[in-house]
Amino acid sequence: MTRNPSTATSLPRSIMLTSLLFFTAQCSDAYAPPPVAPCHRHRWSSSLSSAAAPSATTKPAAESYAASGDENITTRDILSLDYIRSTLIRQEETIIFALIERAQFRRNDIVYKVGGVPGLGVPPGSSTDADGQEEEELSFLDFMFIGTEALHSIVRRYESPEEHAFFPSRLPKRSNSLSELDYPNLLSNDNAINKLNWNKILYDKYLSVIVPAIADKGDDEQHGSTVLADIAALQALSKRIHFGKFVAESKYRSNPEGFQKLVDKGDADGVMALLTNEEVEKQVLTRARLKASTYGREPLMSSLPKVERGDGDQSTAVIAAAAAAAVVAAVEAMQTGGSAMKGKVDPSIIESIYRQLIIPMTKDVEVAYLFLRCGRDPPADFASDRMSVDVTYLSPL
Amino acid sequence: MTRNPSTATSLPRSIMLTSLLFFTAQCSDAYAPPPVAPCHRHRWSSSLSSAAAPSATTKPAAESYAASGDENITTRDILSLDYIRSTLIRQEETIIFALIERAQFRRNDIVYKVGGVPGLGVPPGSSTDADGQEEEELSFLDFMFIGTEALHSIVRRYESPEEHAFFPSRLPKRSNSLSELDYPNLLSNDNAINKLNWNKILYDKYLSVIVPAIADKGDDEQHGSTVLADIAALQALSKRIHFGKFVAESKYRSNPEGFQKLVDKGDADGVMALLTNEEVEKQVLTRARLKASTYGREPLMSSLPKVERGDGDQSTAVIAAAAAAAVVAAVEAMQTGGSAMKGKVDPSIIESIYRQLIIPMTKDVEVAYLFLRCGRDPPADFASDRMSVDVTYLSPL
Repeated sequence: MTRNPSTATSLPRSIMLTSLLFFTAQCSDAYAPPPVAPCHRHRWSSSLSSAAAPSATTKPAAESYAASGDENITTRDILSLDYIRSTLIRQEETIIFALIERAQFRRNDIVYKVGGVPGLGVPPGSSTDADGQEEEELSFLDFMFIGTEALHSIVRRYESPEEHAFFPSRLPKRSNSLSELDYPNLLSNDNAINKLNWNKILYDKYLSVIVPAIADKGDDEQHGSTVLADIAALQALSKRIHFGKFVAESKYRSNPEGFQKLVDKGDADGVMALLTNEEVEKQVLTRARLKASTYGREPLMSSLPKVERGDGDQSTAVIAAAAAAAVVAAVEAMQTGGSAMKGKVDPSIIESIYRQLIIPMTKDVEVAYLFLRCGRDPPADFASDRMSVDVTYLSPL
Repeated sequence: MTRNPSTATSLPRSIMLTSLLFFTAQCSDAYAPPPVAPCHRHRWSSSLSSAAAPSATTKPAAESYAASGDENITTRDILSLDYIRSTLIRQEETIIFALIERAQFRRNDIVYKVGGVPGLGVPPGSSTDADGQEEEELSFLDFMFIGTEALHSIVRRYESPEEHAFFPSRLPKRSNSLSELDYPNLLSNDNAINKLNWNKILYDKYLSVIVPAIADKGDDEQHGSTVLADIAALQALSKRIHFGKFVAESKYRSNPEGFQKLVDKGDADGVMALLTNEEVEKQVLTRARLKASTYGREPLMSSLPKVERGDGDQSTAVIAAAAAAAVVAAVEAMQTGGSAMKGKVDPSIIESIYRQLIIPMTKDVEVAYLFLRCGRDPPADFASDRMSVDVTYLSPL
């Protein structure tokens, strides 16, 4: 079926927002001049502000601020590809921190089994499932995840196009008096695009591929901490993957005719090739590996006793120890297989998660988005319940 | 008032638990031989398993495993001071990761103001406040925090002596059919000891001292992400500080007469001196500072373009870049004031948070615990609504 291209919203090539966020509340208007007073309605959240934190290395190349007052950030050209990339770089920290936190616990399979922890009841605040069964058994993870999403949804988390629920059918109707988010039309507001949600396949691959790769076998009874770490990791991964929508919109705007031509021919491979930037992907992989190596280990622990002897030059000792530890980390990070890895997560595993899961899923989202953006349904391989090239285990390079 | 020492539970000097956790469910018994089959009741969580993750550097010196099956961890001498220290070291990662995550957002004061985000309603699952008012206004943080604690409480988080709620009066009565946690008597089970909860003063100092120190002024509208980062940081800090109870129990067992004598004289300064290990404190501070420096920056970002040129020896380039970045990080970490710091969190701030807040609060908990353990009420300075030496701002060395 070919959609009518005219139903896709026509968007100006570059939008200066009055908000840093992809969604703004009703007191701001994406197309009006920035308000003088800061807009103090509550918004949910966005990783986009990450680049606003002081950082020598992640400063986006194409950022633009327009502050209402000296200290508030309310305007940004968020569809700049440079800006999006800097956001994705900051998300790497959140993802890697979350995976390191999860990796400290054993696999704890029981928390993923329906009925593994019986007697939990109904997650508070959640709506009943589509089939109306109130007392169905859930896995411990699902119970906590549904409860967490129910809580977050009432402060409008899932009204933001950046956020996608894992259990959308269990979200309650909001009954409080917060206004609806009035989100500017950054993405094509085709309903099918809004509905693109890769969380089902992400959730499957997280449990079947990622957890076995990062967590040691067995059970350590840390079930509560385990599922909270799972939820944090899944939410961070979900945000990263669905950023593909914004990446795709940005890429579309830089070459609308090119993508339209390929979509008209139904050429998914061509779309995939046109949106792929291999150099950037390689940078992402190297960076992910080294970040995992850096964040996943204790700096200079083995040298601390020497430092503690207080022989008058603590700084030199600390610096030398840090450099030595970093070299060890980097050597281990670059070893293939990573079997000599002594940190908390094998850096080659983190790289593989990026190479085999995160990047491919992001690109699947992009392809599906671009097909819909150009007025056609995506090919079946790019449905949101699968990976276009399936991955059933990680194979570190 | 002098308590009757005989009401304190008499504890064996060393307990081999059948569980890694401070709490075990009813199918395990702290004083019986380890069960052959793994105990598969659900437990909440504990940071204690952290040391079970493979780590070259944090391996506790005095750990002891007794696995039921090859892969499950069910026995550990958790009151060993070495073991407790290794746990506290792993908690540093969690705390520093959480503070780095919070630091990416602006201060966003509005989320801390009662009524700053009006119309939130009642946190789902929470009980009404003590005064029975259902519709009182809450700050956005408190709304989300109460809702989060309500959710976690129904899976028994706050039945663990490791965990302390920030809003105990808002916790619902559990209505599900999970059994009560059957926690072994590791701590003196004096009711006054169970009730020791430093979260009120921790919460005050977090908002008045820590947030202004780590977050830039202003508002970036990332309100949802901000409060989730706050909750993660506060929970990690709370667990760290209340570990003082276990630290104190362990220290008490190593010198019961010494502590009893000082408490009998009402000598809080003497108790504080006896429990203080300055060498360990210095190690904690140096490590916190260097961890903040290591985790708070991008490794080798500036060198990535060179690596990307693929001149045949990527490993060498990555390793050299990592070492260079580590030296820069360490130099910055050791600079007093840290004003040249270019990472995401100033390492000297993290060190100050440990030096001025975390360590003193932990020791206040220890003093209060030891007084109660020896049968006396703690002096007024060691009440749980204050710091014995107040801190109103951070003063980096």
